Amino acid sequence: MLYHVRMDVRLPVDLDPAVRAEIIAREKAYSQKLQREGKWPQLWRIAGEYANFSILDVEDHDELHTLLSGLPLFPYMEIKVTPLAAHPSKIAG
Amino acid sequence: MLYHVRMDVRLPVDLDPAVRAEIIAREKAYSQKLQREGKWPQLWRIAGEYANFSILDVEDHDELHTLLSGLPLFPYMEIKVTPLAAHPSKIAG
Amino acid sequence: MLYHVRMDVRLPVDLDPAVRAEIIAREKAYSQKLQREGKWPQLWRIAGEYANFSILDVEDHDELHTLLSGLPLFPYMEIKVTPLAAHPSKIAG
Amino acid sequence: MLYHVRMDVRLPVDLDPAVRAEIIAREKAYSQKLQREGKWPQLWRIAGEYANFSILDVEDHDELHTLLSGLPLFPYMEIKVTPLAAHPSKIAG
Amino acid sequence: MLYHVRMDVRLPVDLDPAVRAEIIAREKAYSQKLQREGKWPQLWRIAGEYANFSILDVEDHDELHTLLSGLPLFPYMEIKVTPLAAHPSKIAG
Amino acid sequence: MLYHVRMDVRLPVDLDPAVRAEIIAREKAYSQKLQREGKWPQLWRIAGEYANFSILDVEDHDELHTLLSGLPLFPYMEIKVTPLAAHPSKIAG
Amino acid sequence: MLYHVRMDVRLPVDLDPAVRAEIIAREKAYSQKLQREGKWPQLWRIAGEYANFSILDVEDHDELHTLLSGLPLFPYMEIKVTPLAAHPSKIAG
Amino acid sequence: MLYHVRMDVRLPVDLDPAVRAEIIAREKAYSQKLQREGKWPQLWRIAGEYANFSILDVEDHDELHTLLSGLPLFPYMEIKVTPLAAHPSKIAG
Amino acid sequence: MLYHVRMDVRLPVDLDPAVRAEIIAREKAYSQKLQREGKWPQLWRIAGEYANFSILDVEDHDELHTLLSGLPLFPYMEIKVTPLAAHPSKIAG
Amino acid sequence: MLYHVRMDVRLPVDLDPAVRAEIIAREKAYSQKLQREGKWPQLWRIAGEYANFSILDVEDHDELHTLLSGLPLFPYMEIKVTPLAAHPSKIAG
Repeated sequence: MLYHVRMDVRLPVDLDPAVRAEIIAREKAYSQKLQREGKWPQLWRIAGEYANFSILDVEDHDELHTLLSGLPLFPYMEIKVTPLAAHPSKIAG
Repeated sequence: MLYHVRMDVRLPVDLDPAVRAEIIAREKAYSQKLQREGKWPQLWRIAGEYANFSILDVEDHDELHTLLSGLPLFPYMEIKVTPLAAHPSKIAG
Repeated sequence: MLYHVRMDVRLPVDLDPAVRAEIIAREKAYSQKLQREGKWPQLWRIAGEYANFSILDVEDHDELHTLLSGLPLFPYMEIKVTPLAAHPSKIAG
Repeated sequence: MLYHVRMDVRLPVDLDPAVRAEIIAREKAYSQKLQREGKWPQLWRIAGEYANFSILDVEDHDELHTLLSGLPLFPYMEIKVTPLAAHPSKIAG
Repeated sequence: MLYHVRMDVRLPVDLDPAVRAEIIAREKAYSQKLQREGKWPQLWRIAGEYANFSILDVEDHDELHTLLSGLPLFPYMEIKVTPLAAHPSKIAG
Repeated sequence: MLYHVRMDVRLPVDLDPAVRAEIIAREKAYSQKLQREGKWPQLWRIAGEYANFSILDVEDHDELHTLLSGLPLFPYMEIKVTPLAAHPSKIAG
Repeated sequence: MLYHVRMDVRLPVDLDPAVRAEIIAREKAYSQKLQREGKWPQLWRIAGEYANFSILDVEDHDELHTLLSGLPLFPYMEIKVTPLAAHPSKIAG
Repeated sequence: MLYHVRMDVRLPVDLDPAVRAEIIAREKAYSQKLQREGKWPQLWRIAGEYANFSILDVEDHDELHTLLSGLPLFPYMEIKVTPLAAHPSKIAG
Repeated sequence: MLYHVRMDVRLPVDLDPAVRAEIIAREKAYSQKLQREGKWPQLWRIAGEYANFSILDVEDHDELHTLLSGLPLFPYMEIKVTPLAAHPSKIAG
Repeated sequence: MLYHVRMDVRLPVDLDPAVRAEIIAREKAYSQKLQREGKWPQLWRIAGEYANFSILDVEDHDELHTLLSGLPLFPYMEIKVTPLAAHPSKIAG
């Protein structure tokens, strides 16, 4: 099932640079593992902002919450989830 | 170039049903033509709302505006455009 | 799967009383059929407002959208859907 | 009497992990005691957010406030209460 | 139990003056009956607006909703209810 | 003259408990003195929130500001004032 | 006593031009009478908007509401009142 | 002096097409006259919306308001004005 | 030229009292100098808030920005500027 | 391609003055380099605020994001991007 997710990152400006780099590296690895598993099929940067629009494709709400709350950046993010249904004008493809 | 677009449709409740059906049929044909041309690669219904999230893939801002303002439902919609950049964690695929 | 839904009804004040009564009667029948089928397990009036909080229990986002967009009052409502996950502190029962 | 409550938790990101774990453990015990007493009949996680929707069933506004302001996480939460009335379309059950 | 209520009236500017006068007269009689019964102990005009702050004192959420939704102006109002608890600094009197 | 006031308290979560207790004790004494003088005739806790709705009855805007800005919690509060006029439907009493 | 007032005018675009002109003429006369009486000492147009910022100087909240609700444009306006106190840095003059 | 202006057009969907075309033609002529006079040096369409960002260069607030309130579309627009000052990092050119 | 300015002061609650007093003293002197020069003709406290409404009368946007950004409290304030035009109903005086 | 950008700067009030001066100097150099390259053709201070409106002229969304996220003040800014299309009433020039 598809979910549209907006994530806004709010890292404290005085965060230790090494800590920051380590969190971001873990976030990248975590995200790429989910992408390779097909659970995070779309990921775009919102131009000009430290934020992204993502599409997640998971079994149900519980799996979605488990994946999102496991993000290394989760404590630093504002997240907004929108469930997506099929659109009647969408062509196959 | 990719654009994230949210469209909210506000059709008047007292619109003549035949007029309404005709506009919606034209909207569907218009949307599907753009999908077949590869300019509207993603289209999802926001569950529970008369609204969609779309991804458009066009040459530039002018082509985007031309396509959106040509939508048969354009006079009845609230539209919000967000330009999308590549995300550094996105894997190829 | 559980969805939290807020519905706000905006019926035009000059709607023909017979039309209004007929829509509301159909809405009630529609809602009660879904309640009997176990798909609309919770339904509360928000005190002082022509609005409700509901819990829907359906297969997926598509079924949710089909049910909500089929509501006789759908053209007159503002609807906001929130997907619900299990809470780690919830006791069985 | 039923109350709909939304709770958003804002724990400081630099909170001592032991303090954090202790607060969350007390919160869980406090919540589960109220659930066993029938005063907190519904509790759902809002998918993707450190937040919940709850239904509380208490005697009156004073008991509600006493219970909510006694939550170990109360100093870290934004809370919004909505009183719930019976809905005329609700079937018995 | 006490409820704080804000009511904003939105009468259509083209409403027939006789209809308007009749609704307002019925509203006044309805409100004064509840005031005499002790169920609407406070009623203030918000200076400069067609709106009021009210305190209602009723048995429970259901009675509150019944009284508010029975207001002759109910279809023309936006209403916001806030449940009031005792304040620990309030002196007797 | 009557003023409707909403006060939201935002005490820092890491405030020294003794300092906090002392401020709150002074706030209570300050509030109760004004209540005894008849200048703060109504004071309610907003259920579930560290906030109150108050009615103040003072000579004029200057006295109102002097009283509010003298609150021991003033530096920690967000305050919103609304002037109240007589309502034409209010019965004597 | 001084009140800061923002008034936003929302005249229907299809209002009969003669009716419109008559309302605006009455509004102007009403406003100028209050200005000559010293009750409306300041009146500015918000550049680019059909709106104004005003300072009213009246006895109390009741007189303020009587004057504002008597404005010929009152049914077409959104009004926001803010009570003004003396500022400690204001010089005499 | 420079002013940043955002204009959002809200033409009624049932406006007579001939009236609509006539207003838009007058708007275009009006705008182009001001552009030729150097008073409206920048004008951009906000992609996907019936709205624009403009820069106006006029003598003072009064001239700005006269020009904007004279727009044929003024009764159908929401307008927001922001005064622009020189930026200390701007290079000559 | 006249500008309407709203200033909201957000001094950190843990600011050193001597530093705080010194900033406020400088702010007062700065403001009173501008008042004596006729550049800050109106200054009101918003009742109940650490905020003011001001009218500034300066040459142009650049002078306005220079004066406002030079306020000793500028780093601690949220400021909103609105340019004021002459109102057609304003009487001379 | 043209982008409208609003940037609001939120520097911590307790930032070390030397660090602050160094960041601002780098920001200025960075901005002026882009201005000289023709990629940042317009830059205005929003009067009274530590904020600017800018027009950027770059190849695509990716270049835009690279330039903006490289700003020395980027970690301290809230940024909002709006893509600009040609306006049908714009005259050549």
